Amino acid sequence: MSDGLNMSRRIRRTPYTDRVETAGVRGFSVVNHMLLPKAFKPTVEQDYWHLREHVQLWDVSCQRQVEIAGPDAAKLVQWMTPRDISKAAVGHCLYVPIVDETGGLINDPVLLKLANDRFWLSIADSDVLLYTKGLAIGAGLDVYICEPDVSPLAVQGPKAEDLLAGLFGEDIRQIGFFKYGIFNFQGTKQLIARSGYSRQGGFEIYLNDSALGPALWDCIWDAGQSYNITPGCPNLIERIEGGLFSYGNEMTRENNPLEIGLGKYCTLDGSVEFIGLKALQKIASEGVAREMRGIIFDGVPCPVCSTPWPVMVDNQQVGQITSAIWSPRLKQNVGLSMIERKYWDNGQAVTVFCADKSLRNGNVTTLPFI
Amino acid sequence: MSDGLNMSRRIRRTPYTDRVETAGVRGFSVVNHMLLPKAFKPTVEQDYWHLREHVQLWDVSCQRQVEIAGPDAAKLVQWMTPRDISKAAVGHCLYVPIVDETGGLINDPVLLKLANDRFWLSIADSDVLLYTKGLAIGAGLDVYICEPDVSPLAVQGPKAEDLLAGLFGEDIRQIGFFKYGIFNFQGTKQLIARSGYSRQGGFEIYLNDSALGPALWDCIWDAGQSYNITPGCPNLIERIEGGLFSYGNEMTRENNPLEIGLGKYCTLDGSVEFIGLKALQKIASEGVAREMRGIIFDGVPCPVCSTPWPVMVDNQQVGQITSAIWSPRLKQNVGLSMIERKYWDNGQAVTVFCADKSLRNGNVTTLPFI
Repeated sequence: MSDGLNMSRRIRRTPYTDRVETAGVRGFSVVNHMLLPKAFKPTVEQDYWHLREHVQLWDVSCQRQVEIAGPDAAKLVQWMTPRDISKAAVGHCLYVPIVDETGGLINDPVLLKLANDRFWLSIADSDVLLYTKGLAIGAGLDVYICEPDVSPLAVQGPKAEDLLAGLFGEDIRQIGFFKYGIFNFQGTKQLIARSGYSRQGGFEIYLNDSALGPALWDCIWDAGQSYNITPGCPNLIERIEGGLFSYGNEMTRENNPLEIGLGKYCTLDGSVEFIGLKALQKIASEGVAREMRGIIFDGVPCPVCSTPWPVMVDNQQVGQITSAIWSPRLKQNVGLSMIERKYWDNGQAVTVFCADKSLRNGNVTTLPFI
Repeated sequence: MSDGLNMSRRIRRTPYTDRVETAGVRGFSVVNHMLLPKAFKPTVEQDYWHLREHVQLWDVSCQRQVEIAGPDAAKLVQWMTPRDISKAAVGHCLYVPIVDETGGLINDPVLLKLANDRFWLSIADSDVLLYTKGLAIGAGLDVYICEPDVSPLAVQGPKAEDLLAGLFGEDIRQIGFFKYGIFNFQGTKQLIARSGYSRQGGFEIYLNDSALGPALWDCIWDAGQSYNITPGCPNLIERIEGGLFSYGNEMTRENNPLEIGLGKYCTLDGSVEFIGLKALQKIASEGVAREMRGIIFDGVPCPVCSTPWPVMVDNQQVGQITSAIWSPRLKQNVGLSMIERKYWDNGQAVTVFCADKSLRNGNVTTLPFI
């Protein structure tokens, strides 16, 4: 590892990193100042087929929790998101876009309601803890904000439910989508949600105690042998095919939730007070100028999209692809793209300026890719 | 690169990344969601000797700027730091610890005063922009906060001044330490400061226009040939020997500036109002319980320190090393360590629990290492 990415404490190891290395990880990315495994099998495609058919164990500790607790906690959380959280019950998980005063996206976490006055924000890659602290200090709110010792471990794939039911009991099967339950693990109470960053079904175990990390990994790993379990990580093919967006890729502070297709999570009638309400009302009344779409494009398997690729119509840029990959199922390249209103209709012919300097013919399509 | 770290837009390339790759970079780290070159020569030691004798060109674009402008800008900046900024003039750079309400370190940026109502915070690895936005929104301040298109390029080493004087004029020599001047580059005005993350002297060019990145790199690279210029990056040996701390390694939110040796930047007499004043006053009145020291320890060259190493006296942990390396000049291992008060005296004998499972004998020393 000494020549790898993990050269300092600043890029944090997780409770599972030792296991992940033993399991043959082929490199890491960095999310929230923490290691995220990048690949295990020789190709992302092999990981993809396995994820669709079996079950995988993912170290997603980098999905850090921002805990907000105290008398003003519910008020602060509601202030941060356009989504009405008033009807959320304890045991619910809510996908909550967080926006600034311009309506720009700060993050797109999952909110877990732990109690009426205690919440976790399970975050994508930006320091929501600092934003939350800034808001609370600035407004003088009575809240306690911290990053608890919680390290999510995801179990994803069609066999995840059977595997976890065997380990944690049949009650696992009763957890609804984006709901959680509390389960026993070695005498401790742990939160398990039916959620995860794939479309293949599965669970996330919000392990609250780093010291139990290796034991939890081993326990699932051993029981998983009869389910053909492998180590894994968010899969780029599966994510793009499934139309799952990634903060920092498909969305940044330059984007508002309406153009990302998150309008259904925005209460704009004034019944909910939040930062950015006026900005989003204005955008909604004018109509968004661009929106996320899929693009299917031809040619050989495309290279990695590490900077946005221009999408052109008649030699004019009308959008950009921010994530793209060869789909082994569709046998074509697929990309997630922001596209201007005039050109976002299904079937619109476009030209993609690929990073390998090639021009590819493509068509706009709805998401997820069929 | 497709199998490397740079697999998505989320981990941003810089205006110099193409040049850095051409120059033979041996890998990247990630700081502020952006690529930072990690090494060029076969060993960090070769980079180290070169840096001490010649001049190097470093892509430090990851030192992102948080611009704070507007009627309340000075008030907000002062609120964020224990350092009295009232006497700073336009043209000054100030090292300003940023602390939260507990006195915990949020970041340790360099503040550049651009005008009485306009500042840049040149940040270490945490999203200060989000914290600043949170404070401003929470407190209803009249400020404009953004990340401008500024990508610092550092020219470090003893020959840096001669090199830049040849390119930008003799006025370069008049820039004082932690001061800046404005210089012409291809018809644009660019800010150049005498600063940088080494003890070998040099400058940082705050290039304000990504599109000029390759031209600026090429211009310095070409002129640098007669000074034996090479590509480089912050050097771990030089940084540790020089006692330069790194946010995320030597300091986190768990640390206050007093124990990091930043007391000289903290005005605690109440003449300056800032977040965390009361907490720091309390810590100062009680005396800090631990402080940063150097540790020189024996044995073969130590491995990479990616998680803190316990420092022991009589089988009791009295501190931890957060960065360590073999010093080719001292021909011993050197580490930066937080040490409890009772054990921080010069010469204190300690035992270091190294990541390679070895126990090393060491002694506490002052910083920087001689």
